[in-house]
Amino acid sequence: MAELAGNCLIGQSGGPTAVVNASVAGIVSEALNHGVIEEVYGALNGVIGLLNEDLVDLAAESQQAIRGLRHTPGAALGSCRTKLKKPEDVARALAVLKTHNIRYYFHIGDADSQETAQKIAEAAKADGYELRVIGVPKTIDNDLPLTDHCPGYGSAAKYIATTVRELAFDADATGQGDIVTVVEVMGRNTGWLAAASTLAKRRDHPNDAPHIVLVPEFAFDGAKFADDVRRILKREKHCVVVAGEGLVDKDGNYVAVEGGEAGGAAQFGGVGDHLREIVESQVGAKVRVARLGVAQRAAAHLVSKTDVDEAFLAGQAAVKAAINGESEKLVTLVRGDGDHYTCETGLASFADLVGNVKKLPTEWVNEDGISMNFQFYRYATPLIQGEVSVPYENCVPAFVRLAAHRVDTQLEGYQA
Amino acid sequence: MAELAGNCLIGQSGGPTAVVNASVAGIVSEALNHGVIEEVYGALNGVIGLLNEDLVDLAAESQQAIRGLRHTPGAALGSCRTKLKKPEDVARALAVLKTHNIRYYFHIGDADSQETAQKIAEAAKADGYELRVIGVPKTIDNDLPLTDHCPGYGSAAKYIATTVRELAFDADATGQGDIVTVVEVMGRNTGWLAAASTLAKRRDHPNDAPHIVLVPEFAFDGAKFADDVRRILKREKHCVVVAGEGLVDKDGNYVAVEGGEAGGAAQFGGVGDHLREIVESQVGAKVRVARLGVAQRAAAHLVSKTDVDEAFLAGQAAVKAAINGESEKLVTLVRGDGDHYTCETGLASFADLVGNVKKLPTEWVNEDGISMNFQFYRYATPLIQGEVSVPYENCVPAFVRLAAHRVDTQLEGYQA
Repeated sequence: MAELAGNCLIGQSGGPTAVVNASVAGIVSEALNHGVIEEVYGALNGVIGLLNEDLVDLAAESQQAIRGLRHTPGAALGSCRTKLKKPEDVARALAVLKTHNIRYYFHIGDADSQETAQKIAEAAKADGYELRVIGVPKTIDNDLPLTDHCPGYGSAAKYIATTVRELAFDADATGQGDIVTVVEVMGRNTGWLAAASTLAKRRDHPNDAPHIVLVPEFAFDGAKFADDVRRILKREKHCVVVAGEGLVDKDGNYVAVEGGEAGGAAQFGGVGDHLREIVESQVGAKVRVARLGVAQRAAAHLVSKTDVDEAFLAGQAAVKAAINGESEKLVTLVRGDGDHYTCETGLASFADLVGNVKKLPTEWVNEDGISMNFQFYRYATPLIQGEVSVPYENCVPAFVRLAAHRVDTQLEGYQA
Repeated sequence: MAELAGNCLIGQSGGPTAVVNASVAGIVSEALNHGVIEEVYGALNGVIGLLNEDLVDLAAESQQAIRGLRHTPGAALGSCRTKLKKPEDVARALAVLKTHNIRYYFHIGDADSQETAQKIAEAAKADGYELRVIGVPKTIDNDLPLTDHCPGYGSAAKYIATTVRELAFDADATGQGDIVTVVEVMGRNTGWLAAASTLAKRRDHPNDAPHIVLVPEFAFDGAKFADDVRRILKREKHCVVVAGEGLVDKDGNYVAVEGGEAGGAAQFGGVGDHLREIVESQVGAKVRVARLGVAQRAAAHLVSKTDVDEAFLAGQAAVKAAINGESEKLVTLVRGDGDHYTCETGLASFADLVGNVKKLPTEWVNEDGISMNFQFYRYATPLIQGEVSVPYENCVPAFVRLAAHRVDTQLEGYQA
């Protein structure tokens, strides 16, 4: 493989995770290890920054700042949901890359946004401009195919399991008869995050909270749900329910969405209130609804050390792959076969990514349809392993804001 | 003061806080230091356990368990909202106390529930039965009078400030134009918890999130709110709003309540959605609502060390006061006058407690009505000081469940 000298660029896309900036840190620190990479740039707000030639010099950041990215939530470079729809946009993106001699483009995002990375790669190829494009996965939803799991999932899982255990202790203390705690979690069309709440149970205590876990992989049945709640209230005096936002009924329609339409790019929300109505009307118990919302992807004070380390590793692996001549590939996480959890990185082709959503295997759910079996525990437990000691300033976690030194623009302005 | 030998009993009441069990630990460990206290009992679910003669032997718990209470959420003895309404109930409570030779009764609760403690004390006096009753304060709302601040507040404040900072980092990353994050927090009729969110700001960065803090001490004005949001969106591109659940309009009516009626024992909830409607209809920006809910009082993984220590100290002080002959008193926290924060305990009479609610001083709010001045920072910053390293089991915080060895009953059953 011939050496390809030039600059590299990093872009972030889609909803942040608690560890997405750890991948930025991994890319930056690895890029600086390789002489063929000259400048290390970031695109502000992903493709928007690329189109606007709004680039920052990441090598000029302090080492403290790059290290601090490992525990900083949000997207340090700014994110976006913009896609390159028009041919002019793709041409403009390529022009900016060429102008700044970008030869390596690292795109941190979920499946959708890797399409954008692929478009850029194809445009460069058609133009005869040598460019290596590598995707780095991120999503708390864990619904990306091709990778054993996705950076961002482990931390969201740990946050959800911790919060559900805390809420259960609170509910168990009330002593005022039947109380149902409903926790609405993210996860879109998959139950990975809802299932993660079962990590709140102690080993060999199947009756611990959460008592009912509802995942979108199983059609929601209101009558069965009411029965389950009644049965658990009889046994436990209180009942903790965790529901994925994307629950569907037996006809495949979303149980609750806020705006957007079912099947399309739904804006989820409202499942908790829907369940509250069922419990109040059919069971007659008191209900408290918790909607964890964006905190699930932003709770940097309670990340999984395993997740942070793997997000960083995925960033490093992206650089190594590109240096080795790879392109149009997504970094994946590959679990070892042994009993002891190990994880290394692999590569998958962009072409195999598009349109695939990885669902929670239904055989990991017990016959009762509301609890997980050992296969899920075996899968998920290692992913939430380890705590990270976050620095505090004035008693609140200290996060990094990049200095964001702008790279001089060389092109005319552009109206996307 | 003549020595009073006998047993002691602890009861918990009202909504738990993240540190209410630290007060139990303080009482138990201090009680064991005094020879005049023979048995250390707990009443399960407070007054309910007292009426049902449902007592547990706390001295029989392992030392690990009592130590673990310092970081266990919920109410380890179980809580209740029951009041002693009928004279028969008061008589029964007294009969149980006398039967078990309880000479010291420690009641951990908010203002309302100390009325119950007082009733018991009065009944004992009328009966000529020597009983010392001491209250230990707890509430995340910080609305108790007579005490500088209340155990439970500092931890809820730290959780809220941390979460608001994390949500702000997430929102700031979207890069998709105007976005408004609305965070609904507890606090009933006072703004202590909403105000605490301002601790998320860095020192000397007044423009940091939260940008708008709405407290019930100021009448909510929808038009001014919309103006404030517009102004901040122009400056920051995103806007973080924190609102107390108990906001009222200029006529003193709650802006949003769920069930219950205004002025009475309202069940709060819905302010966030109300603000969302205003922003969507009058400003036209995208809104995300986070309702932190019960997590605010249960997030034991993120407590303030100062708060835990003071909750424990308040428990110890209750025992010392009772041993010294005090009764019908509430333990208070008294702040030192010096520049460096110090805190010791004091005592206040139950009689001065009833019906008083401590509001956030309006002179601690800036003229803009939506941000706090240095007086609030000076007050609140010490209260969230310090982190506690919570033990983890299987990657989730490990909490204590008491063994709860029952004390043999000696009376007939009772139907409250």
